Amino acid sequence: MTLNEVSALLLEHDNFEILTHNYPDGDCLGCGYALCLGLRQLGKNARVITTDKPKSFDFITKLCDDGDFEPEYIVSTDVADEKLLGKNEEKYTGRIDLCIDHHGTNKVKAAHSYVEPDAAAAGEIIYELLRLLNVELTVDIANCLYTALSTDTGCFCYTNTTSRTLRIAADLLDLGCDSAYINKVMFETKSKRRLALEREILENMIYCADDKCAIIYTTLKMVEGMGDDETEGIASIPRQIEGVKLGITVREKQGGEYKISARTNGDFDASAFCRQFGGGGHYAAAGCTLRGDLGSVLDTIRSAAEKAL
Amino acid sequence: MTLNEVSALLLEHDNFEILTHNYPDGDCLGCGYALCLGLRQLGKNARVITTDKPKSFDFITKLCDDGDFEPEYIVSTDVADEKLLGKNEEKYTGRIDLCIDHHGTNKVKAAHSYVEPDAAAAGEIIYELLRLLNVELTVDIANCLYTALSTDTGCFCYTNTTSRTLRIAADLLDLGCDSAYINKVMFETKSKRRLALEREILENMIYCADDKCAIIYTTLKMVEGMGDDETEGIASIPRQIEGVKLGITVREKQGGEYKISARTNGDFDASAFCRQFGGGGHYAAAGCTLRGDLGSVLDTIRSAAEKAL
Repeated sequence: MTLNEVSALLLEHDNFEILTHNYPDGDCLGCGYALCLGLRQLGKNARVITTDKPKSFDFITKLCDDGDFEPEYIVSTDVADEKLLGKNEEKYTGRIDLCIDHHGTNKVKAAHSYVEPDAAAAGEIIYELLRLLNVELTVDIANCLYTALSTDTGCFCYTNTTSRTLRIAADLLDLGCDSAYINKVMFETKSKRRLALEREILENMIYCADDKCAIIYTTLKMVEGMGDDETEGIASIPRQIEGVKLGITVREKQGGEYKISARTNGDFDASAFCRQFGGGGHYAAAGCTLRGDLGSVLDTIRSAAEKAL
Repeated sequence: MTLNEVSALLLEHDNFEILTHNYPDGDCLGCGYALCLGLRQLGKNARVITTDKPKSFDFITKLCDDGDFEPEYIVSTDVADEKLLGKNEEKYTGRIDLCIDHHGTNKVKAAHSYVEPDAAAAGEIIYELLRLLNVELTVDIANCLYTALSTDTGCFCYTNTTSRTLRIAADLLDLGCDSAYINKVMFETKSKRRLALEREILENMIYCADDKCAIIYTTLKMVEGMGDDETEGIASIPRQIEGVKLGITVREKQGGEYKISARTNGDFDASAFCRQFGGGGHYAAAGCTLRGDLGSVLDTIRSAAEKAL
């Protein structure tokens, strides 16, 4: 379907619920609230359904209350799979009328789906949709969409960033979005716990295979009480080190399980490395699970890395 | 003067030397080499003069050799003051024909000056200049200019980023610049020494004034053998911590001197804080110098912070 047809579907209805995924991030929240504000501007009822409202996104989630109306049309934004609806999965599975997303792997079974895998963020789609709907892009909407674009691209640094991403971001700056505040909160603020975690990770980092492999680990104790947003991005630490071809992150999970994330810079097959332990993934990013105690898991990974590199 | 007049001046001459500043960064090197390639495309002789060619910029500095010609026209790009020419200061001071820069504080005494303080990077000016000169923006030129823009804006994250910056970056992506490689080298690669330094800094970090102040320090021993590019950005670590109003970095220098950098998020006057020690600067970023041993310097700073906050 085309974006014009998406726009026509929205114009036909009046009472919307907009679903976002669990562990909500800047893209799904930015999309949900931008679309909600846009639909309200068109005289419709709309609310955003979230599993959680992380504090750092207050400036977005405060923009719309839930309103008082019976929803008749369910839209999902940035949701790749009903499983990702978290506590809302049961209620909404099979009930989604329109799915708007940018994940090529989208599995949502909706009456209508609009998926654009080339969009760096679902926010790019919502931006163009609101333009088609002749919604006035207010500063609030611009803030939502800038957050969507900047968070899904690591502030325009990740390889998914395209010229379209940058041009839309330029438009949002011209519309007066507060990129200074958003960038500060999203990219330049670390909790004390996060910094302490980074310190502990760096203290315990293991180099092996002639420094071509770096291994970091977190234990349950190290991340106690920390949300997913506070531990995000940890896995990119070892891969960033000059000369490291294989960066490995070992995360202790409940019940003696250890999640292994392998990251490479494209000159070593992370997927093949993880397959030997029953895992898999992509060439540059893959994972597997090991059982045992931390020492033996680290030994296993280390020997495998020495062998492979 | 207008950019059209700058372009006319360049067309009138044939043998160029392009000056960059000492401790060369992505902006001055990107500008220098993009302009050099552009002038050569117009059939002119040109070379770039640098004090140094940092390894991480090999992909830029390999683009032009020195050529064999007598220079008759000296252009500086991104140089705010002749003092910043480093070892080339004496040779070129008073000899610069055309200064192209984006520092509002530019002090270069050139025959002609074109300074655009609103440009996030001097690369924005060179981009528009090459367009005016009808130079074909090759992939090599696009790589130079993308490096200039992205490094001076922290990959479009700093507050100097404007919609113009983003639109030019979008054009450079469309021209085929290798943003993936450039971003990886510029923003996602850390040396082992840098990581070890970060670890040591985090180990020794001091919180005070009810955690509203965080102090980090580096000693000469901690940064032994490290270049300026490897220690860059350290001063932003304490300011990034949630709840911290005043982030202080203490750097040991030769002869028992300690350079103090104070950074705030705009809700505390760093300049006033540093003035009590004979320093100064801006509201959000200021500095001063203290003498003594590390322990007493840290005590002095700590007491002052406790008092001020």
